[in-house]
Amino acid sequence: MRAEIVSVGTELLLGQIVDTNAAYLARVLSELGIALYRRVTVGDNRERLLAALTEALTSSDVVFTIGGLGPTMDDITRDVLAEAMGDTLHPDEQIAAQLRRFFEQRGMPILESNLRQALVPSAGRAIPNPNGTAPGLLFEGRNGKIAIALPGPPNEFIPMVNDFVVPYLRTRTGGKGVIRSLVLRVVGVGESFAEDRIKDLMQDANPTVAPYAKVGEVHLRITAFAETPAEADRIISDRAALIRQRLGHAIYGENEETLEQVVVSLLQQKQQTVATGESCTGGLLSSRITDVPGSSKVFLGGIVAYSNAAKTDFLGVDSALLARFGAVSEEVARSMAEGAQQRFGTTYGIGITGIAGPEGGTPEKPVGLVYIGLSQRGRAPIVERCEFIGSRAIVRHRATQTALNLLRLRALES
Amino acid sequence: MRAEIVSVGTELLLGQIVDTNAAYLARVLSELGIALYRRVTVGDNRERLLAALTEALTSSDVVFTIGGLGPTMDDITRDVLAEAMGDTLHPDEQIAAQLRRFFEQRGMPILESNLRQALVPSAGRAIPNPNGTAPGLLFEGRNGKIAIALPGPPNEFIPMVNDFVVPYLRTRTGGKGVIRSLVLRVVGVGESFAEDRIKDLMQDANPTVAPYAKVGEVHLRITAFAETPAEADRIISDRAALIRQRLGHAIYGENEETLEQVVVSLLQQKQQTVATGESCTGGLLSSRITDVPGSSKVFLGGIVAYSNAAKTDFLGVDSALLARFGAVSEEVARSMAEGAQQRFGTTYGIGITGIAGPEGGTPEKPVGLVYIGLSQRGRAPIVERCEFIGSRAIVRHRATQTALNLLRLRALES
Repeated sequence: MRAEIVSVGTELLLGQIVDTNAAYLARVLSELGIALYRRVTVGDNRERLLAALTEALTSSDVVFTIGGLGPTMDDITRDVLAEAMGDTLHPDEQIAAQLRRFFEQRGMPILESNLRQALVPSAGRAIPNPNGTAPGLLFEGRNGKIAIALPGPPNEFIPMVNDFVVPYLRTRTGGKGVIRSLVLRVVGVGESFAEDRIKDLMQDANPTVAPYAKVGEVHLRITAFAETPAEADRIISDRAALIRQRLGHAIYGENEETLEQVVVSLLQQKQQTVATGESCTGGLLSSRITDVPGSSKVFLGGIVAYSNAAKTDFLGVDSALLARFGAVSEEVARSMAEGAQQRFGTTYGIGITGIAGPEGGTPEKPVGLVYIGLSQRGRAPIVERCEFIGSRAIVRHRATQTALNLLRLRALES
Repeated sequence: MRAEIVSVGTELLLGQIVDTNAAYLARVLSELGIALYRRVTVGDNRERLLAALTEALTSSDVVFTIGGLGPTMDDITRDVLAEAMGDTLHPDEQIAAQLRRFFEQRGMPILESNLRQALVPSAGRAIPNPNGTAPGLLFEGRNGKIAIALPGPPNEFIPMVNDFVVPYLRTRTGGKGVIRSLVLRVVGVGESFAEDRIKDLMQDANPTVAPYAKVGEVHLRITAFAETPAEADRIISDRAALIRQRLGHAIYGENEETLEQVVVSLLQQKQQTVATGESCTGGLLSSRITDVPGSSKVFLGGIVAYSNAAKTDFLGVDSALLARFGAVSEEVARSMAEGAQQRFGTTYGIGITGIAGPEGGTPEKPVGLVYIGLSQRGRAPIVERCEFIGSRAIVRHRATQTALNLLRLRALES
């Protein structure tokens, strides 16, 4: 099976956004063993889009469009794709009713243009979009050609690829000759350390192992080629087991699993709870934890103590401690962790205080200096001193990453 | 002048890397006033690259290739581009000598394949690459067509675009004609509402106005073509003024400005302060506010009150209120806002309580229901009831977006 991707949007041709969607879909296709020989990007222009689609449909079995499904006049993909496929669009009453309900609930008037999003192909159907108003469209042509139209916003696009495109294509390809991959997620060690431990494995052709450095973590992608998915999975799981032996607890999760998800489910298993006291991260740590569904079972609450008064009033940090050591100090981080743990009555308390920058650094306490305290009921608290390099956003992210990892390693041994 | 970009590399078609180079070059071309109607990506395949280049050279005046200039066998761009241009390559002795010196200095033997990088077109020349071994290539065809081959690594690519491509194209275009653009950021109204207000302006060819829907906001991009940058800026600022008249306070900022940046600087101007009491957003609101450098002047702190006990203990929410109306209610949102404002002693307090999902909804209180309270010293508090659709992350983001906007609108009138 041969595929082509047509990205649609003048903003792509003006270089205003980078086409991460096309790269995501390309990777998915390669993992399904579907050949992608070409990608094309055109603007919101009827004539050029029609030419690109016609050409793509001539040389490929399945053509994807990304973008141009919105309600506005320059969203032309729906109409032009129908023309290229020799199909016609008609309103789907169920989708129209959903759209009307959507606007009604918001007390907004529905416009005629909004209802264009309820149009579906005669030979095909709508693809549900749980995160937006524009459904995707599947066209199944009489000549066996398939076209799949997907919306541009990544938070709508990615779930539709995972939940619709992958299972749909799997049934169409019969699943022979596959590429599969697994990502092992590593935290607390650098890319070169991780790479050094698996250098020999990086020479192999099947499976391949490739490291990717992310902010505050490293991803190791294992990719295997095989006749069947089961065989590919076996090759991958053997290699993953070997890498796990070498990197141990530095591997915290797999694929799309986030560090906060792993921490929340670990605490759920152990029936333990946590509370936070944050200064420089300003709620980013509690926000990451509560981003995980079900976190209310393990997270009781947090204090964002940006001012010194708040550290004293809400976390019980002794003002003498603040005066003597300063707000950014080992002592205050420890006291914030203890305060959070005691006041919320949790198993663990985390305290973070530091200088996120870009202003506020001194020679003794430079931008990027962060103290992270971990307190546990019945055990002595610990504090980690970190010096992070990077922007304010990176310092804040790395601080929460380190805090989550401290908590994970402690919960693993509890 | 019309341009096309052809990106070359199987790794792009496998989705292993995202093509940021093409987006960079696209933006540069738009700023030079050169029309880019299409971008194509092909793999390291002779036949398909030749077809793509031939097609591009038919419809465009200047064609760029990105990638495929390395020394290995699958680096085919040089040869295939020469063929497409009807040109031949010959060794440039000066470049060959540089290459030999480069390898000698590193104590590495130079291979025959390395010397392929010294080949240059008969009608054209090499483009210096101070950051790598592969020079770029300029082909100047007898038919007036131009082709420019650039290397793939961004640290080599970007300097060559800035130092060679921009000045070269400026001389070719006679330096006349620029495209400039401005983004107006809109919050609190939907894409179709915003579009409805400016529908007539969207018909114009110069400047163009195009809406882009983002999560919780809409961006309106104004793009102008003109002889000079000053003239383009004047066209844009006239159009921006007109749009501001029509959308008023719904426009919160320009270009890269975020809503939290606008709120923080507004509070700084007014010398006002804010504190937060968050339940379902779990610290996301305080995290967004403290993401802004200098926010410590206006943000004193926040309480993440995930449990009912925390709402009572730290924000003073009456437990009778919680029992009678439930944690997700207008009354509790108001009380959380007042608690935050009073306990931190700030000008404003914000309280957020809702059901972020995916679990926890009921027919009366569905997933996505969020109450947002705003309390102000000396004024009656207000509460907004919202029903958001989407994933947990989207509900949480939209809730903080609405809260920041409520605060912005209130501060504007204070």
